[in-house]
Amino acid sequence: MKNQNKRLIGNALVGQSGGPTAAINATLSGVIRGVAEARETVPTLYGMRYGIEGFLSGDVIDLSKYFDDEKALSLLEQTPAAALGSCRKKLPDPSKDPDFFRDLVKRFEELNIRYFFYIGGNDSMDTVAKLTAYLETVSYEMRVIGVPKTIDNDLVGTDHTPGFGSAAKYIAVTVSEYLRDCAVYRVPAVTIIEIMGRDAGWLTASAALPMAIDGIGPDYIYLPERTFDREAFLSDVREALKKHPNVVIAISEGIRFADGEYVGAGSQSGAKDVFGHKYLAGAGKVLESIVREEIGCKVRSAELSLSQRCAAHLASATDLDESVAIGRRAVSLAVDGISGHMVTVERTSSEPYALTIGSSAVGAIANQIRSVPSEFINERGNHVTEACIRYLLPLIEGERQIVYDRGIPKHFHF
Amino acid sequence: MKNQNKRLIGNALVGQSGGPTAAINATLSGVIRGVAEARETVPTLYGMRYGIEGFLSGDVIDLSKYFDDEKALSLLEQTPAAALGSCRKKLPDPSKDPDFFRDLVKRFEELNIRYFFYIGGNDSMDTVAKLTAYLETVSYEMRVIGVPKTIDNDLVGTDHTPGFGSAAKYIAVTVSEYLRDCAVYRVPAVTIIEIMGRDAGWLTASAALPMAIDGIGPDYIYLPERTFDREAFLSDVREALKKHPNVVIAISEGIRFADGEYVGAGSQSGAKDVFGHKYLAGAGKVLESIVREEIGCKVRSAELSLSQRCAAHLASATDLDESVAIGRRAVSLAVDGISGHMVTVERTSSEPYALTIGSSAVGAIANQIRSVPSEFINERGNHVTEACIRYLLPLIEGERQIVYDRGIPKHFHF
Repeated sequence: MKNQNKRLIGNALVGQSGGPTAAINATLSGVIRGVAEARETVPTLYGMRYGIEGFLSGDVIDLSKYFDDEKALSLLEQTPAAALGSCRKKLPDPSKDPDFFRDLVKRFEELNIRYFFYIGGNDSMDTVAKLTAYLETVSYEMRVIGVPKTIDNDLVGTDHTPGFGSAAKYIAVTVSEYLRDCAVYRVPAVTIIEIMGRDAGWLTASAALPMAIDGIGPDYIYLPERTFDREAFLSDVREALKKHPNVVIAISEGIRFADGEYVGAGSQSGAKDVFGHKYLAGAGKVLESIVREEIGCKVRSAELSLSQRCAAHLASATDLDESVAIGRRAVSLAVDGISGHMVTVERTSSEPYALTIGSSAVGAIANQIRSVPSEFINERGNHVTEACIRYLLPLIEGERQIVYDRGIPKHFHF
Repeated sequence: MKNQNKRLIGNALVGQSGGPTAAINATLSGVIRGVAEARETVPTLYGMRYGIEGFLSGDVIDLSKYFDDEKALSLLEQTPAAALGSCRKKLPDPSKDPDFFRDLVKRFEELNIRYFFYIGGNDSMDTVAKLTAYLETVSYEMRVIGVPKTIDNDLVGTDHTPGFGSAAKYIAVTVSEYLRDCAVYRVPAVTIIEIMGRDAGWLTASAALPMAIDGIGPDYIYLPERTFDREAFLSDVREALKKHPNVVIAISEGIRFADGEYVGAGSQSGAKDVFGHKYLAGAGKVLESIVREEIGCKVRSAELSLSQRCAAHLASATDLDESVAIGRRAVSLAVDGISGHMVTVERTSSEPYALTIGSSAVGAIANQIRSVPSEFINERGNHVTEACIRYLLPLIEGERQIVYDRGIPKHFHF
């Protein structure tokens, strides 16, 4: 790491990348607040529209004017989905395509960018790692910090990720409402709730949280960390139907059969996104068909869909407050000489909940997946444990006082 | 109508029927409050578990103990989905199966039920009408009141129905969040949001409400009141894609082609519920395929699913307050001698919003559908009008202060 402990005066650039969350704008607000506090070192904060892709096409705005606008920042914090716009751009390998990075650095120089903050998930940390690696080979001085954001909670090196707590709260509340909805009739019925999470089951595990409140939760929870077995599933469903008429099951979109094939692979197999991930759709629909054919009772499935990442009206106050704090810390770390790091969270206690914010070298973080650990999954692989619920519960706590306009939450627009 | 103006002393029975809503328990709370106020005439209030079907199997509880429990009633009002349980029981024709009604009345006599309140939608008003017709032919004195409840807003004789405002608010807020989510990338993409409403487009029309707040709304809104034309739809989508990359479309699950076939009929055609309605699923998925094949851009569809009827955390305060008032009014109308009526709402002004609560003979209401009128749909049949937005807006106003327990709204349990 270069530049440590040396005062580096220059402007900052912040971008949002990857999928939207309910908290990514709170992190942006934190970065804006952090730069405002470091104004003597960092006079101007630029925002890239549509991530690094938009920046490359010259789409940049000056965010300094929001430094002292508390009303605007507060509105930004209750606004879902990347307010600056986002992208899913995978950068080339710096050793194979140095020209790409030479152009990029030329643009940084034009704006005298000395601080670079990239708010994103796994793929965005790959961008941070590559940019850091390239900067090691040239003389241009710029500090690069990855600011975590992903509803998937699957980044390594951190207790949890900003955005996850709000998504988990949306899932917990929605499942608690679905449980009520499912309980109204006495006719035997199976309801399958499909929850986001390609590789890690954190979001699906959050479906268990209503149990902590009034003891009522889904009958089963199937995570991608365990092989999905068709016969064991049918046996589970039959067993639950003997106990009560309304069976509720939470599944991850990413559950796979023993041969590695996604349960939902039927629908859109083959198609892949720019990072090579397979598109997924329909594990719920597949299981719905299996129950209909094999058990024959009333059955329906529901995907919680986009609200999992953008239901800002139900954001976790804990998540939003931490997101702001993490954005601010990103700035102070960089001003203090840190570069090539991602901001991380270490939980020091669950009851009462307490944490410290630090950072880790991004090279050890990018392109890895943090799965739900074994101690959070029950032995039969069809539910989560008490330990898992204790881990999750503090992350969904608290509600922000949302500003509404005629019945709809107000959103911030650049 | 019998019994008018005569004081009738006896107990009351209340039931919830049909699909859940976020406000049906507020109406139940209103009935409980109303009976508490009429205690000298109506000493005991019984609740039927699982509607008329549960009542027939003897599943009845005494609700009188909640008369003075303000905390419990307030919790009941923030709890989604029929707390008493519900059913989808279609009663026989009284002239064809008088034995059924004889048994029913025998059960009423056993509990000295003189007031019968049935909270439900169209099919439940059918129950109220049949019971009323039967009672005209026998000597047993009982007053019967239908208390409206349906997220579909399709009951005739009333400006709107309890439960609709909360569902409309959920849809408006969710669509406003989807619009933000859809705006983050610059890649051309079409998002299709499928909204409940088999025959009437009221819920789908609510997707337009974000436009009133910040001028941003879906590009198109297709209601079941207009024939869905595949070519006009594709031409609409192509036109919108020329203007901006992120096209958002709201469709009703009940849209049909010119031949009367549901757009979503492919998936589950043939299956019908006990009232003879076709099950619907997948209009969004069908349109998603059409866009993928014919236009070839990125496209996805999402069903708002069960949350439309149970997202109590986002209930409209206007809806909940009116639901309580309507429940109370049901009781006072009956005590004053009214029977065979449904409680109705007449809007006296939209700006400022004002209404009066009255009642109408249920015979003129049951088994009819109130569609979205022509003046609320634009000429091309692909969006709603300003007049429609003005009608809808007051119904979603206001937020209740929800009581949370560790991040999740608390629910009431009998």
